[in-house]
Amino acid sequence: MPRNKEKVNLVFQPSGRQGGVVPGLSILDAARSLGEEMETPCGGLQGCGKCKVRVAHGDYAQWEIESRVEHAGPRQAVEEELLAPEELASGFRLACVAAVQGDMVVHIPDESRRGRQVISKQARVNHFPAKPAIRTYRIDVSPSDLENPMADWERANQAMAAHGDLAGADWDLAALRDLPIALRRGNGRICLDVRMNREVIRARQNDQRRLLGLALDLGSTSMAVYLCDLNSGEIVATASGMNPQCKYGDDVVSRISYHQMNPGGLDEMRKAVVEAVNALADQTLAELNATVTGRDLSREDILDMTLCGNAVMQQIILGIDPEPLGVLPFTPVKRGSISIKARDIGIRINPGASVMVMPMPAGYVGGDIVAALVGQSEAMQDGPSLLVDIGTNGEVVLAHGGRLWCTSCATGPALEGAQISFGMRAAEGAIERVRIDPATLEVDYKVIGHPHWRSQWSTEAIRVRGICGSGIIEATAQLFLSDLIAANGAMRKTSPSKRLVINPQNGMPAFVLAWADETRLGKDLTISQKDVRQIQLAKAALNTGCHYLLQRIENDGTLQSVRIAGSFGAHIDHEMAMVLGMLPAIAAERIANVGNAAGEGCCAALLNTDMRRSCDRLAEEMQYIELTLEPDFAHQLAQATLLPSNK
Amino acid sequence: MPRNKEKVNLVFQPSGRQGGVVPGLSILDAARSLGEEMETPCGGLQGCGKCKVRVAHGDYAQWEIESRVEHAGPRQAVEEELLAPEELASGFRLACVAAVQGDMVVHIPDESRRGRQVISKQARVNHFPAKPAIRTYRIDVSPSDLENPMADWERANQAMAAHGDLAGADWDLAALRDLPIALRRGNGRICLDVRMNREVIRARQNDQRRLLGLALDLGSTSMAVYLCDLNSGEIVATASGMNPQCKYGDDVVSRISYHQMNPGGLDEMRKAVVEAVNALADQTLAELNATVTGRDLSREDILDMTLCGNAVMQQIILGIDPEPLGVLPFTPVKRGSISIKARDIGIRINPGASVMVMPMPAGYVGGDIVAALVGQSEAMQDGPSLLVDIGTNGEVVLAHGGRLWCTSCATGPALEGAQISFGMRAAEGAIERVRIDPATLEVDYKVIGHPHWRSQWSTEAIRVRGICGSGIIEATAQLFLSDLIAANGAMRKTSPSKRLVINPQNGMPAFVLAWADETRLGKDLTISQKDVRQIQLAKAALNTGCHYLLQRIENDGTLQSVRIAGSFGAHIDHEMAMVLGMLPAIAAERIANVGNAAGEGCCAALLNTDMRRSCDRLAEEMQYIELTLEPDFAHQLAQATLLPSNK
Repeated sequence: MPRNKEKVNLVFQPSGRQGGVVPGLSILDAARSLGEEMETPCGGLQGCGKCKVRVAHGDYAQWEIESRVEHAGPRQAVEEELLAPEELASGFRLACVAAVQGDMVVHIPDESRRGRQVISKQARVNHFPAKPAIRTYRIDVSPSDLENPMADWERANQAMAAHGDLAGADWDLAALRDLPIALRRGNGRICLDVRMNREVIRARQNDQRRLLGLALDLGSTSMAVYLCDLNSGEIVATASGMNPQCKYGDDVVSRISYHQMNPGGLDEMRKAVVEAVNALADQTLAELNATVTGRDLSREDILDMTLCGNAVMQQIILGIDPEPLGVLPFTPVKRGSISIKARDIGIRINPGASVMVMPMPAGYVGGDIVAALVGQSEAMQDGPSLLVDIGTNGEVVLAHGGRLWCTSCATGPALEGAQISFGMRAAEGAIERVRIDPATLEVDYKVIGHPHWRSQWSTEAIRVRGICGSGIIEATAQLFLSDLIAANGAMRKTSPSKRLVINPQNGMPAFVLAWADETRLGKDLTISQKDVRQIQLAKAALNTGCHYLLQRIENDGTLQSVRIAGSFGAHIDHEMAMVLGMLPAIAAERIANVGNAAGEGCCAALLNTDMRRSCDRLAEEMQYIELTLEPDFAHQLAQATLLPSNK
Repeated sequence: MPRNKEKVNLVFQPSGRQGGVVPGLSILDAARSLGEEMETPCGGLQGCGKCKVRVAHGDYAQWEIESRVEHAGPRQAVEEELLAPEELASGFRLACVAAVQGDMVVHIPDESRRGRQVISKQARVNHFPAKPAIRTYRIDVSPSDLENPMADWERANQAMAAHGDLAGADWDLAALRDLPIALRRGNGRICLDVRMNREVIRARQNDQRRLLGLALDLGSTSMAVYLCDLNSGEIVATASGMNPQCKYGDDVVSRISYHQMNPGGLDEMRKAVVEAVNALADQTLAELNATVTGRDLSREDILDMTLCGNAVMQQIILGIDPEPLGVLPFTPVKRGSISIKARDIGIRINPGASVMVMPMPAGYVGGDIVAALVGQSEAMQDGPSLLVDIGTNGEVVLAHGGRLWCTSCATGPALEGAQISFGMRAAEGAIERVRIDPATLEVDYKVIGHPHWRSQWSTEAIRVRGICGSGIIEATAQLFLSDLIAANGAMRKTSPSKRLVINPQNGMPAFVLAWADETRLGKDLTISQKDVRQIQLAKAALNTGCHYLLQRIENDGTLQSVRIAGSFGAHIDHEMAMVLGMLPAIAAERIANVGNAAGEGCCAALLNTDMRRSCDRLAEEMQYIELTLEPDFAHQLAQATLLPSNK
């Protein structure tokens, strides 16, 4: 290991990552600086207690390290608060609290390590009607000679006059840079790629290059890019990955905090995500070039881009202060769509290309829901219809009679697996499905990354790491159906099953979903009374949001359909959601998963300028309902925490 | 010295610069990579023989170097051609030819080192009528609340509606980034800085900040920036320096070659000059902030910019291929002015600021002459008038009867001191004035950087390094007046004065201006027959250009004035220029030095949008005369090489 006198040397286990860091950093910051990824749902703000680590005490000759527990400094009050007594006894520390003061070997337990999330951002539609913003014009430019010397631009402009549409078009600097080269290589016969007939963005030799565009669906957790052929309207390649901003916190509130607490934090987060977008774009190009129709296409051939995400994601990638999105009245910078040059935010596609950033109707009703809506709005025209997108917030749109209402429900992060005892995101090792036999109270479950239910495992050495949103919902619904939970959410305290346990600390009951030997946790994985309360709050928030939207059309029709967008919709069991009363009463067959509707809408807007106009129009028309302003909101929400009696 | 096995170690003397370089580089490239500056009038293209160096042979324990002459490889044919026999005998090599193959101590003789040029880019006018492109609007933005939630931009836009001028104005991303912060800091009362009433480029708290602008006069050799107050119209600070592109060659042709021969060379040159501009801008800000009226002004407060230079300089800083400017018919990318965002070329002023790049009427009639003209055109309205700007090319404009003709004369670099035996640029140590007593042929001269003539020196240890353009012109004129040169330019071969010497190699005469002991050259500084021929060609080119322009108005008036712009105009002795017949016949008092007219015009355009429109109009009106197309051009040029008989 390279030694450095001013730095202290760290080794992380089990990854084996090592390196020197400046003393005084928190172990978490040290881990980040060495590329070690840890779970930090709160963004390292000493709020969640998830970044547990253990510092080894001993001499490690192989790394020339004498690791001492005291090298992490004395234990702090916040650690005593957030860590369980047995964890404190075992020497656990919080990585966000403990400071690096000397050489250390740091063990990161499995539950603190970041799993690779399963990303389901695949578009289900692969072809859209094309009416792209970029059109190509072939022009013949007369030569310049000494008798009649004319500059390049003036000659090109003269030739463009033949195309009346182009009168007065601007030239981007990128196109001006192309022009002398294209003119001379092409002997005056050149192609101009023109945006909205208003701006020449590329000049090139007259050839048959494919025009590409990029749609970006930017989630707080995961992101996906879709490389599209602007003329055929096809998605030609896709790539997805984690949003690297996760290391600054799991939800938008933590990201806003990171920006507030760290000078330069906004730019740091912006650059992180932009680099990831660039890498994904390259990945799609490589994929396309590996196909028969691909070949030598490059970043330069990506001439247009659209982008959707929640308002915080959109403002961060634009480098716009997201702070007002985090405080009442949750104000976005602009309701309408924003068009900028891709280069101005560091996205490395054609230097003349623009990015259309989706409109943001409200602070918590972002561009992603507009993008989701634009592809669904036609199908939603027949009778009252709801579009639901559940993330850390639930965003809901009601369409009826040509009008649109929208709201955001503070479902909280529980449905994504956070603030749940053993909660985690939908990543490998997470329980995603649960069945409980009402008679025996025996449990069966399914783990992400493995095709079979627990009961069908043979010799698999699968070990559970936690439970994700859909798992928690199913577990809660199954406990309710098994009468282990009452309609008010109270868990039974006695049961013949040994799976019902009582927490000796607080006397509260919990239900064991997986025994210690089935997990990588070293202990039983349980659903606690507190977890059930979290789910009740989340489902109540969503239900209440739908309630107030439907109130707008009370005497005007019956709900015809509910469309669930996003990866949550892909995992959730509609029956179980109905059991819990998450959604308004509707027949299960009228609930549809519409998959990654946001990504598809983003592609549609990329490929069709009419769709872009629709996005702006929809955002303009969407009437935002702030739930907390409804006079009986508190009462309604409390009511909605109850589980339905008609189970 | 840090050792590196893959690199070889060089020490340059007398500077003492040292470092490791990759073997195989030319000594010149090695010098560049270590920041050592050398004279390279030809741009390192093995054409001028000015980059003479000597490799030491010996052991230098202090640097752990064994320097060997053979480490520079065998002598090449081009060196035998360009170096004098005695130089070859003394072991001189050309830095652009000799390759680094092992450790070396390299001596750079004084004449090969780059002197610091005396820059006379001071504007003579310090105040211009202000009608800036940037206007500030104060607006009161209504708050957003939960009952009526509106996004920031929509609220600002509503407030802007009160200013009819601003309807439909675009917002730069920079201003959009400012907006949420300004709104919240200013409690809704904010200032918008708007460009041409069309684009909001900055949003800020309502305060009284000064709005600044930057004008850049970008010469091939030197450059100057003028920091101006956009509202008062004053130049508040200036700074000037060398154009760092000089290391890629002294003239525009060498720079074009550097781009052609080096992949990435264009961007390298662009970045070099942009960094220098940024540094000069910072220098002016520091100067302003040190004054009473200054204080906390920063780059962010520079909201607008104009830029002028010859067409090659303008295209390089824009990153536009300058190659077509170097070949017939010398085509610029665009005749009209070009407006781009400063950030798109890396200039670090306010991120929303634009740069107006001056129009380029022709490949060799650049934005600098347009800028020079815009300030002079009013004064030139009374009768035929010439504006002359002499650099490596002479650019001449004739104004008469509301019409404009322009041309470029291939004066060559002789008037700037290049291609002259002992020529150098107007830098410290250069002879700039010369007097020769016709009776005794004794010489008196004045050296740049010293206030007194040679004859008035007492104990000064001044040593001459070379002779610059004005010195050569004076010397030639004085030799002509002393009858040492005939009207056809032939030098006498005999004279009683020991200053007339005959070159033993070619039998040609030369005249000693400074004896070896007065110089740092180790030999006599002479004006040779060849030098006189160069001056004849240069003055003939200029005279011929004026001739053909004046032919356009032959029967229509007598020349009323000649205005000489640029630093050459500041140094030149009008009488001597007339003696040589450089300019058309006119009374000496009708010749005016107009100083740095280009820089002043650039400031005028920065501060006044009417002036910008005038620039475009002037460039549009200027009728370019290509001299080589004139039927009797060759004859006329030959005639003009003669010296006037009416001396």
